[in-house]
Amino acid sequence: MQSKVATITNGVDVTRLTETIAAVKATPELGKFQFRVENRWIDCGENHSEVQPFYAGGQEVPHKTDFTLVADEADILLGTDKGANPVEYLLHALAACVTTSMVYHAAGRGIAIDRVESSVEGDLDLRGFLDISPNVRNGYQNIRVKLRMKADVTDEQLRELSALGPIFSPVYDTITRGVRVAVSAERMS
Amino acid sequence: MQSKVATITNGVDVTRLTETIAAVKATPELGKFQFRVENRWIDCGENHSEVQPFYAGGQEVPHKTDFTLVADEADILLGTDKGANPVEYLLHALAACVTTSMVYHAAGRGIAIDRVESSVEGDLDLRGFLDISPNVRNGYQNIRVKLRMKADVTDEQLRELSALGPIFSPVYDTITRGVRVAVSAERMS
Repeated sequence: MQSKVATITNGVDVTRLTETIAAVKATPELGKFQFRVENRWIDCGENHSEVQPFYAGGQEVPHKTDFTLVADEADILLGTDKGANPVEYLLHALAACVTTSMVYHAAGRGIAIDRVESSVEGDLDLRGFLDISPNVRNGYQNIRVKLRMKADVTDEQLRELSALGPIFSPVYDTITRGVRVAVSAERMS
Repeated sequence: MQSKVATITNGVDVTRLTETIAAVKATPELGKFQFRVENRWIDCGENHSEVQPFYAGGQEVPHKTDFTLVADEADILLGTDKGANPVEYLLHALAACVTTSMVYHAAGRGIAIDRVESSVEGDLDLRGFLDISPNVRNGYQNIRVKLRMKADVTDEQLRELSALGPIFSPVYDTITRGVRVAVSAERMS
């Protein structure tokens, strides 16, 4: 009888991570994921998303609990400020993904990290959204992620660590390179 | 003495919307916004963002309350599933922004909407993130937004309504066209 010892680095079970990589290498279909949310408009700038079960390598995976994400706009943007607004959620998605990607890939390399914090800011010119100037884009013009890390590593390793997020993060890749978004609409009965 | 009557459509104060557009037209600096989050790693795939005050046309604007956004990964992705994961937050940001952009711009056109719901799904191949295949991107390969709407409009108006999100949404623009993300890192004391 074999016994398995989990190797945990940065909270990541590296034994399972290695097994996952081997499994997806052997059966590429296992790498196919589909994530989903269902959104419902409440009023004005308020709407809620319910995170759905996701498809992961051949199976539907429910989340442990329901996650309801509340979006709203602040008063200056005519809303009631019941939640972060969509462009703030985008910054959170980016910060979270860059952090997790770094933490997981550091674990895979056996590098222990003590702490990670980040400040993320994005510049947006409302003249795009308000249809005032066709030369101003609607979205973010620039985003900056400032990482702060505590780890027992050399300066060079610190630079290598901070590159892992941009190299591997799915949200960083999506946002920096862009992705096709198909929008369709139908009438509700 | 003048009295002002607020015109509300879709919950949006169209009088204030019109005044905002006029103000930003007259003083383009008022259109300059900066949104911010502060993220902190907890363990493994869990990290939290605190949404910060934002800069809006010359002033710092605090939110009414604190918004803490919890990201985590599901067990199959080695996490503890305490919150939606980063790529799910990205879908929420998109759904929320497309919806709000449509609702506000419909209000500006005097078009009342009764209900909006949307299903958003994104395809992601983990072979990118797991560094298994250099030909597979890390991020989303495709995203689909399926809107369902209830409004007393013609079919042509329905199509026009559903185009407002893609035309004006900041998150849609950011995700489809891409944006530069600068990442820097420093050692924490």
